[in-house]
Amino acid sequence: MATIQKPSIPKGTRDFNPIEMARRNYIFDTIKSVFKLYGYQQIETPAMEQMSTLMGKYGEEGDKLLFRIQNSGEKIAEAPEKGLRYDLTVPFARFVVQHREELQFPFRRYQIQPVWRADRPQKGRYREFYQCDVDVIGTESLMSEVELIQIVEEVYRRLGLRVCLHLNNRKILAGIAEVIGAPDKMMDITVAIDKLDKIGIDKVNDELLERGLSKQAIDKLQPILAMTGSNEDKLATIGQLLTASETGTKGVEETAAVLEEVKRLQVALPIELDLTLARGLNYYTGAIFEVKALDVQIGSITGGGRYDNLTGIFGLPNVSGVGISFGADRIYDCLCERNLYPESMLEQTQVLFACFGQDELNYAAGIARQLRQQGVRVEVYPEPAKMKKQMAYADAKQIPWVAIVGGDEMANGTVMLKNMVSGEQEQVTLDSLELKV
Amino acid sequence: MATIQKPSIPKGTRDFNPIEMARRNYIFDTIKSVFKLYGYQQIETPAMEQMSTLMGKYGEEGDKLLFRIQNSGEKIAEAPEKGLRYDLTVPFARFVVQHREELQFPFRRYQIQPVWRADRPQKGRYREFYQCDVDVIGTESLMSEVELIQIVEEVYRRLGLRVCLHLNNRKILAGIAEVIGAPDKMMDITVAIDKLDKIGIDKVNDELLERGLSKQAIDKLQPILAMTGSNEDKLATIGQLLTASETGTKGVEETAAVLEEVKRLQVALPIELDLTLARGLNYYTGAIFEVKALDVQIGSITGGGRYDNLTGIFGLPNVSGVGISFGADRIYDCLCERNLYPESMLEQTQVLFACFGQDELNYAAGIARQLRQQGVRVEVYPEPAKMKKQMAYADAKQIPWVAIVGGDEMANGTVMLKNMVSGEQEQVTLDSLELKV
Repeated sequence: MATIQKPSIPKGTRDFNPIEMARRNYIFDTIKSVFKLYGYQQIETPAMEQMSTLMGKYGEEGDKLLFRIQNSGEKIAEAPEKGLRYDLTVPFARFVVQHREELQFPFRRYQIQPVWRADRPQKGRYREFYQCDVDVIGTESLMSEVELIQIVEEVYRRLGLRVCLHLNNRKILAGIAEVIGAPDKMMDITVAIDKLDKIGIDKVNDELLERGLSKQAIDKLQPILAMTGSNEDKLATIGQLLTASETGTKGVEETAAVLEEVKRLQVALPIELDLTLARGLNYYTGAIFEVKALDVQIGSITGGGRYDNLTGIFGLPNVSGVGISFGADRIYDCLCERNLYPESMLEQTQVLFACFGQDELNYAAGIARQLRQQGVRVEVYPEPAKMKKQMAYADAKQIPWVAIVGGDEMANGTVMLKNMVSGEQEQVTLDSLELKV
Repeated sequence: MATIQKPSIPKGTRDFNPIEMARRNYIFDTIKSVFKLYGYQQIETPAMEQMSTLMGKYGEEGDKLLFRIQNSGEKIAEAPEKGLRYDLTVPFARFVVQHREELQFPFRRYQIQPVWRADRPQKGRYREFYQCDVDVIGTESLMSEVELIQIVEEVYRRLGLRVCLHLNNRKILAGIAEVIGAPDKMMDITVAIDKLDKIGIDKVNDELLERGLSKQAIDKLQPILAMTGSNEDKLATIGQLLTASETGTKGVEETAAVLEEVKRLQVALPIELDLTLARGLNYYTGAIFEVKALDVQIGSITGGGRYDNLTGIFGLPNVSGVGISFGADRIYDCLCERNLYPESMLEQTQVLFACFGQDELNYAAGIARQLRQQGVRVEVYPEPAKMKKQMAYADAKQIPWVAIVGGDEMANGTVMLKNMVSGEQEQVTLDSLELKV
């Protein structure tokens, strides 16, 4: 242990200091409190999963982004059997199948844990980040979609962030693929138009061509991607276009039912039917959602959808579920940019006892002990130090009161209490101290 | 995605179901609430650290137990540069050095995160488990030891678990090594007597002999290891034995000062001066602690100590700190065995709306929305199902009330409310529903 190492952390990972933690906890606690209002229950799964659980679930690109884990004891040449979880959805599917005998269906679960991806790190993209997932599995009821929309509404209402929910349905996309004459290209269309926001319509069309769509099919797709108007207008138009497609018609009906119920419940969240919304993941089969902040340029901050057979690969076929994932990092950035964190969030120390000698320290420790028994958050500066240093400490930790104890105070059972905002100080008795701070 | 996989998780890891999560959260929340009373602030560090940060910090055995991480893109033959964190102490030291310009010293931090060790899994020993660490760094004041002892007292008082704190001091152990004529064997003595509880005095003596201690030195050690009596008696005896050792005398003085202050503050926690307490880790330099449950046979459930140079390896020498770690898994087992979890901990759904048709479902969804706005935790069964199935669902989730809605109720603006404990049911108006559940 002799050589000195300059400390660093792996690229794409982060330390979180106390202020960052308080903000993150505020977001997690807000989200959790809403999940609980709807009866969702928390689970956790291990950071590492079997490689066989992870491989092949995220597409070829995803497989390459998995972090693999080796025991130090293993030979380096052996292929690792374990990997770090890449998302919370596949572990959830694995959990549901493995524990199906213990669970009540429909099973409402939430899960807030980090995931790891060996992505190239860049601004806003990390190799370790938290996901907050909420899913209900074991029911096909569209009431679940309506419930998740209400959860989105309530979470962002509590956070004070204005958002819009974009809604589409994979069955509509499948219907579109059918009616433009490319029924087998549904996934290609999905993957390509998922990039519309990022690369624009021309490049999407190029990609569609590359992926084997005919010029004619692409031409037929254009008016659909460019469709405007109210949700009702769009639904009517796409409904007519898709009459020949059974799947497409089902998608239109599902979407209409969800929008109708949301309207009946007077959900205040703006919702936009967005026929260009595709979402890249290939397990979605029904409604798909994405939430965007209205006042911050940051992309999607929440997303999800319905899947009909996520658990099939683990031996439990035909169990439908629907879920959404809140992107904690982007929400964090949004709240920073809009200055939306509450002041009380830090739960900082309420009073610091300054320290000028051992006797004073012992006296302060006794008072501090009593105050803590009343629930007051108290620190005692643990050793004599210059007044200036101790005041700077209190300022930096945003502690509102400093209690100063000297010979006089010890003799008459008081403390000198200094308000760190106004600078005023006042001698108070021990009995009244709790009421002051 | 065609082959069906039987789902499993890597050995030594665990899934946590909702009840287990509620219990774990109860423990974490209790511990956190006490940490905050003393001004400790939360940080988090990445799951993965540079291998150079981890290697050589946990002894030869520890190095072998590190999990190494590879990007999928990397060649398997390359030695991995990253590893999963093995504890929270080394990442904390790395954090303090890396962020020293942003921190206020003395820096009080707590950290609750999982750690990973490629240990052979066995009952009560996992490859992934949580640690709850609390440390103050940047002061040599013994008031910090006193503070941590009060934290231990308050955490276990809140949890309702009777415990005893075992206290020793590495300087006393160093003094003992000196006076028995083996001053260079302090670490060997520490490692050997740390096993006293597990392997007994005879095997400890065998190991001391193997580690190169003379028969004479071992003989001299025996009365010290066998010492009994009150803390005051032991301190007096060991104080006399160590008069020739400057370090040993300092250790006795430190211990006396801590015990005196704890007595003055009327700390109710039983504390035993235990000269056989050694703790294996080689960075401790002063007070060392271990906490044992009095009514559960499970070994140490909390432990820690003072270190004078943990940050030295990362380039910041001579920064003294002291900390303890609460073992969440063992505390979990203790509370289970003593049946100490509070009933209210689950925060389960308060009322379930049963569902018998689409109209009833819509009606229920509207009432549920209003109740949630009042803060009531409500579920709506999302699809029509047999009464028996829905009641079984409510029972399994321990939901105390089920609201049943039929044509009559919809017509006159009421619900039929069933108490799941007594089985009684009553028709209540929507206005009075909130007060009932």
